[in-house]
Amino acid sequence: SASAATIAPATQRVFTFGKTKSQGDASMKDLLGGKGANLAEMSRIGLSVPPGLTITTDTCAEFHTSGRQLPPGCWEEILEGLRTVEAEMGLRLGDAAAPLLLSVRSGAAISMPGMMDTVLNLGLNDACAAGLAKRSGDERFAFDAYRRFLDMYGNVVMNIPHHLFEEQLERIKAERKVTEDTALSAADLKLVVAKYKEVYKSRGKVFPEDPYEQMRLAIYAVFDSWQSERANVYRSVNGITGLKGTAVNVQAMAFGNMGLTSGTGVCFTRNPSTGERKLYGEYLINAQGEDVVAGIRTPEPIDTLARTLPGAYQQLVENCNLLEKHYKDMQDIEFTVQEGQLYMLQCRGGKRTGQAAVRIAVELVDEGLVTTDEAVLMVEPTHLDQLLHPQFADEEAYKGSVVGSGLPASPGAAVGQAVFDAEDAEAWKSSGLPVILVRRETSPEDVKGMYTAEGVLCQLGGMTSHAAVVARGWGKPCITGCSDLQVDEHNKVARIGGKEIRQGDFLSLNGSTGEIILGKQPLAPPELAGDLGRFMKWVDDRRVLKVLTNADTPEDAEEARKFGAEGIGLCRTEHMFFASEERIATVRRMIVAQTKEARLKALADLLPFQRTDFEGILKAMDGLPVTIRLLDPPLHEFLPDGEMTEVCEALARDAGVTVDEVYSTIEKLQEVNPMLGFRGCRLGITYPEITEMQVRAMFEAAVRVIKAGGKVQLDVMVPLVGTAAELANQESLVRRVAKQVMAESDTVVSYRVGTMIEVPRAALQAGAIAKTAEFFSFGTNDLTQMTFGYSRDDIGKFLPIYLEKGILVNDPFQVLDQDGVGELIKFAVERGRASRPDLKIGICGEQGGEPQTVAFLHEVGLDYVSCSPFRVPIARLAAGQAAVRSAKKGKGGAK
Amino acid sequence: SASAATIAPATQRVFTFGKTKSQGDASMKDLLGGKGANLAEMSRIGLSVPPGLTITTDTCAEFHTSGRQLPPGCWEEILEGLRTVEAEMGLRLGDAAAPLLLSVRSGAAISMPGMMDTVLNLGLNDACAAGLAKRSGDERFAFDAYRRFLDMYGNVVMNIPHHLFEEQLERIKAERKVTEDTALSAADLKLVVAKYKEVYKSRGKVFPEDPYEQMRLAIYAVFDSWQSERANVYRSVNGITGLKGTAVNVQAMAFGNMGLTSGTGVCFTRNPSTGERKLYGEYLINAQGEDVVAGIRTPEPIDTLARTLPGAYQQLVENCNLLEKHYKDMQDIEFTVQEGQLYMLQCRGGKRTGQAAVRIAVELVDEGLVTTDEAVLMVEPTHLDQLLHPQFADEEAYKGSVVGSGLPASPGAAVGQAVFDAEDAEAWKSSGLPVILVRRETSPEDVKGMYTAEGVLCQLGGMTSHAAVVARGWGKPCITGCSDLQVDEHNKVARIGGKEIRQGDFLSLNGSTGEIILGKQPLAPPELAGDLGRFMKWVDDRRVLKVLTNADTPEDAEEARKFGAEGIGLCRTEHMFFASEERIATVRRMIVAQTKEARLKALADLLPFQRTDFEGILKAMDGLPVTIRLLDPPLHEFLPDGEMTEVCEALARDAGVTVDEVYSTIEKLQEVNPMLGFRGCRLGITYPEITEMQVRAMFEAAVRVIKAGGKVQLDVMVPLVGTAAELANQESLVRRVAKQVMAESDTVVSYRVGTMIEVPRAALQAGAIAKTAEFFSFGTNDLTQMTFGYSRDDIGKFLPIYLEKGILVNDPFQVLDQDGVGELIKFAVERGRASRPDLKIGICGEQGGEPQTVAFLHEVGLDYVSCSPFRVPIARLAAGQAAVRSAKKGKGGAK
Ligand SMILES: [Mg+2]
Ligand SMILES: [Mg+2]
Repeated sequence: SASAATIAPATQRVFTFGKTKSQGDASMKDLLGGKGANLAEMSRIGLSVPPGLTITTDTCAEFHTSGRQLPPGCWEEILEGLRTVEAEMGLRLGDAAAPLLLSVRSGAAISMPGMMDTVLNLGLNDACAAGLAKRSGDERFAFDAYRRFLDMYGNVVMNIPHHLFEEQLERIKAERKVTEDTALSAADLKLVVAKYKEVYKSRGKVFPEDPYEQMRLAIYAVFDSWQSERANVYRSVNGITGLKGTAVNVQAMAFGNMGLTSGTGVCFTRNPSTGERKLYGEYLINAQGEDVVAGIRTPEPIDTLARTLPGAYQQLVENCNLLEKHYKDMQDIEFTVQEGQLYMLQCRGGKRTGQAAVRIAVELVDEGLVTTDEAVLMVEPTHLDQLLHPQFADEEAYKGSVVGSGLPASPGAAVGQAVFDAEDAEAWKSSGLPVILVRRETSPEDVKGMYTAEGVLCQLGGMTSHAAVVARGWGKPCITGCSDLQVDEHNKVARIGGKEIRQGDFLSLNGSTGEIILGKQPLAPPELAGDLGRFMKWVDDRRVLKVLTNADTPEDAEEARKFGAEGIGLCRTEHMFFASEERIATVRRMIVAQTKEARLKALADLLPFQRTDFEGILKAMDGLPVTIRLLDPPLHEFLPDGEMTEVCEALARDAGVTVDEVYSTIEKLQEVNPMLGFRGCRLGITYPEITEMQVRAMFEAAVRVIKAGGKVQLDVMVPLVGTAAELANQESLVRRVAKQVMAESDTVVSYRVGTMIEVPRAALQAGAIAKTAEFFSFGTNDLTQMTFGYSRDDIGKFLPIYLEKGILVNDPFQVLDQDGVGELIKFAVERGRASRPDLKIGICGEQGGEPQTVAFLHEVGLDYVSCSPFRVPIARLAAGQAAVRSAKKGKGGAK
Repeated sequence: SASAATIAPATQRVFTFGKTKSQGDASMKDLLGGKGANLAEMSRIGLSVPPGLTITTDTCAEFHTSGRQLPPGCWEEILEGLRTVEAEMGLRLGDAAAPLLLSVRSGAAISMPGMMDTVLNLGLNDACAAGLAKRSGDERFAFDAYRRFLDMYGNVVMNIPHHLFEEQLERIKAERKVTEDTALSAADLKLVVAKYKEVYKSRGKVFPEDPYEQMRLAIYAVFDSWQSERANVYRSVNGITGLKGTAVNVQAMAFGNMGLTSGTGVCFTRNPSTGERKLYGEYLINAQGEDVVAGIRTPEPIDTLARTLPGAYQQLVENCNLLEKHYKDMQDIEFTVQEGQLYMLQCRGGKRTGQAAVRIAVELVDEGLVTTDEAVLMVEPTHLDQLLHPQFADEEAYKGSVVGSGLPASPGAAVGQAVFDAEDAEAWKSSGLPVILVRRETSPEDVKGMYTAEGVLCQLGGMTSHAAVVARGWGKPCITGCSDLQVDEHNKVARIGGKEIRQGDFLSLNGSTGEIILGKQPLAPPELAGDLGRFMKWVDDRRVLKVLTNADTPEDAEEARKFGAEGIGLCRTEHMFFASEERIATVRRMIVAQTKEARLKALADLLPFQRTDFEGILKAMDGLPVTIRLLDPPLHEFLPDGEMTEVCEALARDAGVTVDEVYSTIEKLQEVNPMLGFRGCRLGITYPEITEMQVRAMFEAAVRVIKAGGKVQLDVMVPLVGTAAELANQESLVRRVAKQVMAESDTVVSYRVGTMIEVPRAALQAGAIAKTAEFFSFGTNDLTQMTFGYSRDDIGKFLPIYLEKGILVNDPFQVLDQDGVGELIKFAVERGRASRPDLKIGICGEQGGEPQTVAFLHEVGLDYVSCSPFRVPIARLAAGQAAVRSAKKGKGGAK
């Protein structure tokens, strides 16, 4: 069609792989998908891979833009590729005498477990099934393959619900009085095939007997699945963007279901939970691949294979070593053994937990396979996030409450209230309740519910079941294959160890041990040590950006130092106003004061509280920079909630003023848009006595620390500056009070005065502002609000729609908007440094600990980022990785 | 002192003027002040000016920064200058035998009427007064001068209230049974002098007998007056910034109070109200200058002088002609006649009304004194603002309600409620009530009250009294010298023509005729014709920027075309939602709709209303561009006010939904920061059906106009765009509906799709956005809000303090902030044009009609500005002036 023609020039759309030749290689992931590229690569390096062909991801995009049509010439290319597969196999598609059977699988550039559909045993019809029986000498095998194909094809391509087939199978098994599929005879399976065909008819569908038509429709179905709702949800949840589509892999079948010398399995070259260097996987004898991944039958550990098929096992071990050396990373492998012969069906970089990621990176360095720079890039910042998720405070203490255990499918501790379906999980979570999702098994439809849950518990499934793989990807604790557990999803109840778990009951999961524990078990923060310690040393050696923390209390400050914080980038003093009844009452007296004298009195009462806080924080940081922000929020935030009359009466009583005065003060503080109102330095300029008190408290605290032998670097930060004159006003006030206190105490305090850059105008006027400011700290929360015109409190009305329609790729309050807010940051850095070359520049918004943002800020040339204590290690890693990547690109950061 | 030394290098601080030599000239206004520079210039060109010296404005700044001290060497310079004055006069300061008397006056670079203090007759003490009596042969004159000096000096320099002196004078007048000061004898005046000296003592002050000390303290007092509160208020109200201080003029006295051949007066070389080319002024016989300016005695018209002192009058006429030729503009002159000899005391460019400004500019062109380019620069945009202020609809209709008349001191029509002091004026105005300020006389303390009033009515004072001069400067209607009027300020009542006017009574003033009218008389808009028509033609010939208008109704659109609007830059369709009960009810049904169907139904009902409006507007503009903005405000703005339960019940009844549904819908619409919330294109993206309806209404209206033979240029404008994707989303919707309607009607409509640039991010992303946008229109209200982080609704909490402390120079919602918002505008223009060279760029914020802003936007290279209909001529003038100034600087605008 015309529109397709405009998208793609004549280009190769089909790439074959196999013993004889592979047209692709591992570098072609964007075009061939991860699976296709790796199949080609494995063939190239001599591993035994059934031959096949890969249709490119570009073709998927063309298919969709041209209204579900293959681009012209594509079908012919597919057939040509098929000829080389047929030649290598010595079989032909649709040839009853020597039928070639195919698998058709999806494979995008980024792995999306369980998201895409697969068809096995394609090419069978009545004639070919008979031919396969004859050729294999195993009628049972042939018709088992046939009935599997009818089921899978009906489900994936023809949209017939799987349970309709399942019901037929179960009915025949019941009639035959058997429980296992394998107990059915060839004759039984022929009957199943007949029944399955009736299912097609009953749904008004025609099963295509022509294997070429089967193949064409299967390819279409794979392409369609790229646009399915569940695929879209997965991409949206995981922030996956910029992909063109999925590739299609059409590959000769290797049969794991040809008896006891056959089987299929998946394995990791190292343990994906712990990182231990030991083959880790599962194997199902006499089965096809989908039986493992679907998690319906619980497979056996990979070790079993060493005993049952030692030759194939030895081959597998060798292949794994070869692949690790080749890819220089832990691999996730799918394989099939057909009558003792090993075939590699897939290999890819293995998903791993944070713990495993760190251990693998460290050990690969020790094994000489990667450099420390490469190792730094092997651990994702989200991996650290997992590592830093809480563990149970005392694993011994809860032993009495353990009611059962399952497979430790994804490590970590989770505590929440039991829910039994994904919708409930989302609903409870959105009410602020932490949940544990309890399911018989999970399917792609559960993805969103799993994402919102603290942890996942499944009755069925192995270590590589859908639930396990998805949960590990997110670092979410998960237990699967728990045979003691009976889940009744319909009645929202589960039974285990004689106990009943009902919706809303508290449950704790230990994903590292597989223990299921009743009640709400206490958690403890994690620590950085061992492999992680070594790893973080490499990270810090590379890192250029300093990492500071946002901390409002001495406790936070101490916590953050343990995580490696190199100072405090933001101390929001007002957070401590609510720390006691007495404090907040004093603040309120200050607000409703009707005279300057009354306000000064209240401020004088507030001073000792602030001084104590500052002293603790300065002490904890012992000479590292401590950046204290002057009062920032609108004053009405400190007023009590409740019925107006009562509030006014109480305040009036306490402050010794009239109710009318309080009422009128509160009225005056009301604002239409508080975010753009009377706050930030506007307060300190209007009421200089507030700034004076805060600065006095800071410097008196600093003097005390110094006199007690400590070190102090105090950075006083003025919030919400938009004009150079605002900063100049507050700066002269700060310096005046600082001089007074230093003179009074005969002590010199090392201090700087700087400003937040959080109003767009401040970024634009950075040159003028830097004449006064000794440091800048980007307040990217406010800066994002004002640059977009989005109120954080109100964005919920349209953000979901914006994300859904692709108008925004991320929530800009989570991931810094580089095109808009980032542009302002770049201007401000450039102009600020032009007028003050030694200007210290950092960020203290929430995005300061977000990896993509940290990488951007490294490029822009900031001096530091500041984030919440738990995010400090993540920010360190992101900064270290950014430095390594910059060096690779031949530059050492913008500074 | 050290700090003074850092400010000023050794430099000339005193400049003399007089017959023999003048050290300054007219170009030195910044240094010598307007008065000093013009005194020097008048001397230079040979006019008779009493000799004197001017102390520079720099000295004033030094005086204040060094803690009220003259810089080193300055006093000696003053004495040296004094010697040249003494030499020219043949008199000496403090010499009883031949005493030199001096005036000491302020004079900044910009004239500030009534703001600065003046001392006359300085140099008198007991000995010198006796000497003056002897030398002049007029004892009465000498002691009148002495008592005037004691009063003025006591008041201005010593801070003794004037009324204490006045009381003494009145008591003696009462004892002598006389009413006029002139009826007192020399002996009486000696007694007055003695009593005045007692006043000094009673206040614990010592009158300095030493004339040098008198001079020193008077100079200090002038410098002090620069920092007085009233001077600060005047500068703040008038937006005067960047001045260093006031100069001081010390000048030999010329005496207008030496009998019937003496006198003092002020005059304009043309009529400052009408512009007529005829000497216009007032003259007080046997008086000193302050008697005229203070407005206490009502003087005689200048014509009288022609009869009483024809020689002096002839000299005055000649001087005026000379000055006009020299300065090429109408002049405002102060003079004194001493015993038949004319002395020029001051000349400056005369303040004038808008009407006068235009007539003078046009006539100066006709007289060959100025070019049309120079004429374009002679009329200030604020002058046009006055001209465009309303007049009475029918001057005959109100004749029955005229209760009296006074001097037509400042033209135009004013209607408001009577108040009797400045505080009341401010209080009433801030409650939204228009007021007429009624006073016995006004003083500088009344300035703020006058500013807030619609018009000013004074019992006393002439055409050049304080009230008259200040009111004319602002183009505010004013009537003075109304002898029929009795104002009782204490009891807040006035009596005229047998009627009582009480506080709150409606009053109408015709400042052009001097008529005082009871009640609220209807007003009518003004017209552009005659001189103004010629003048605007010159303006438009020069102008590069187009001037469009903001109009929401067909009526506004027609009105604006009369004012020269070249299209509509902003039509806010939602303003018409409130035009009828039926409309707003339909809008509310749309908002509370619980299904898409219900919303579509309500939208379908709304469509005909919008189409009718658009048809009227497009017709009125007949092919000029009409820019219609899609729905912009948050939906909750359309909900009724009132008690929640009642509101919900009424809405539910009307929309046929449940009260709970309405309640929940309203709840969901509530926002913390509505300005940053669910509004602008966020609405149209979330509810595409709203955009569809609006676009359909626009195009159906366009089709109707075209089919009726009219022309249409329709510009569809998307509000609050922050990302290119937002605009792309709405643009494709607009184009789809446009195509549909054009196909349905088989009519081609010329249209463009563009966007507002009102979110900082949009300015930063202008390059990407211009890929889709065919035009940009800066929405500087929102852009200012977000660039500063100022909510327009809440800025009142700190803006007054910011202006007072000089943190802001202007309200950024009135005058565009060039450093911040302007910077974003520059980026957007540059980036937008880079990606689409023919991008049409304009502004539709409130600042679009503000002259400074228009000049800036001309420089930046915009294509058009759009403002409210009444501001269109002002914007045309500002744009024309900007073009003339650019041409002067040798460039023709940035485009
Ligand atoms: Mg902030
Ligand atoms: Mg706007």
